[in-house]
Amino acid sequence: MPRFRMTIEYDGSAYVGWQRQENGPSVQGAVEKAILSLTGETVSIRGAGRTDSGVHARGQVAHADLTRSWKPATLRNALNAHLGQACEQVAVIDAAEVTPAFDARFSALRRHYLYRIISRPAPLALEAKRAWWVPKTLDHAAMHAAAQMLVGHHDFTTFRSTHCQANSPMRTIDRLDVTRDGDLVEIRATAQSFLHNQIRSFAGTLKLVGEGKWTPDDVRAALEARDRKACGPVAPPDGLYFMQVDY
Amino acid sequence: MPRFRMTIEYDGSAYVGWQRQENGPSVQGAVEKAILSLTGETVSIRGAGRTDSGVHARGQVAHADLTRSWKPATLRNALNAHLGQACEQVAVIDAAEVTPAFDARFSALRRHYLYRIISRPAPLALEAKRAWWVPKTLDHAAMHAAAQMLVGHHDFTTFRSTHCQANSPMRTIDRLDVTRDGDLVEIRATAQSFLHNQIRSFAGTLKLVGEGKWTPDDVRAALEARDRKACGPVAPPDGLYFMQVDY
Repeated sequence: MPRFRMTIEYDGSAYVGWQRQENGPSVQGAVEKAILSLTGETVSIRGAGRTDSGVHARGQVAHADLTRSWKPATLRNALNAHLGQACEQVAVIDAAEVTPAFDARFSALRRHYLYRIISRPAPLALEAKRAWWVPKTLDHAAMHAAAQMLVGHHDFTTFRSTHCQANSPMRTIDRLDVTRDGDLVEIRATAQSFLHNQIRSFAGTLKLVGEGKWTPDDVRAALEARDRKACGPVAPPDGLYFMQVDY
Repeated sequence: MPRFRMTIEYDGSAYVGWQRQENGPSVQGAVEKAILSLTGETVSIRGAGRTDSGVHARGQVAHADLTRSWKPATLRNALNAHLGQACEQVAVIDAAEVTPAFDARFSALRRHYLYRIISRPAPLALEAKRAWWVPKTLDHAAMHAAAQMLVGHHDFTTFRSTHCQANSPMRTIDRLDVTRDGDLVEIRATAQSFLHNQIRSFAGTLKLVGEGKWTPDDVRAALEARDRKACGPVAPPDGLYFMQVDY
């Protein structure tokens, strides 16, 4: 059976998250339904990251095994036609045939996320559900300095959900950069893998630094506490984008 | 009565357009309703541009006369609270008290619009209703060259809606630039004022150039024809943003 890699974009606000669940429509379910209506095959696809409800993707990656071979562009266009017919907020932006050794989740070398904050007095109209609205001006340079405390190999117990299913709280953060362009503050995070709610925990904590409530040293102390209660408030999903996976 | 200038952002896809109309909710109506619930006053506000249904704004400007004086930031925040309560996709991003001589429409010196096209094989998920999806790759350099035929003082009969209510088809286009950043092609247009559907007529025609179906000379010929039937198809409202007004 040929295996296909799909790169997927979605507006997460319409879904309970990537993963198929009992309590509502999922992105995984939308893609599997499109495959079923295209091929008649009930497949289970695997994604590189299990994004939560409200979290968006510009470059989620998933793989699927299909019984027949497809020209990748034909598969992409046909899946998009079925997704469009079902009014899904999901698009397959690329498809490629890969070897059976490829696994969207386990072959991933690095995952790239973006967290967008818009800091301005007025609430968001055009960017509603596309960014985190923070009414106060943020000191992005202080946020960036604090973020560097979190780069490297650490025990991230403080920055993971109590529901995180990973065996170990140890992770290696390769990059955590904070930049500003006008009202828009962007946090870019790269690691081989992240813990559940890790980036939103980072974003919520770094926002406290941006507001001047915490110092970079407070962030270091929170990390060293290895205690979930030491974390700042978890940032909302609206600002988080799963951007890219390197293989 | 003190006069206030408001700078307004909105997601046009939820509205029949800027202007109050019988057939559905308008942005003007949303702001007027917020003023009514805040002040108890029934006012008629005037906007710098009457955007069509589906057209967005990052910097629409309107003025209103209120009976009492307000601290501008208080007015902005209070209006946003009322707009938010009514679940409107509208935000007042700035408010200022101005002299009675100021008129949002008639004092405008220059209006700036942006038209966004995303050209890629896959339909839009995250940018649905925020840009025009064009599946083909566009030659933005050819589009820019063609756009220069439209800059300057011309009779734009070809590029205005048959429903346009302006007395004259003469307008002066100060700027019409086409640039590309990856999949995103942006058209930036500046003029003191535009005719009805003028920028969407430009965008639809320039897209034909980008696809190689028209040459820049065809655009010049269409302009010189002074005939609405010589225009390319009108581009959808989704990609159009009213960005800024200079006074």
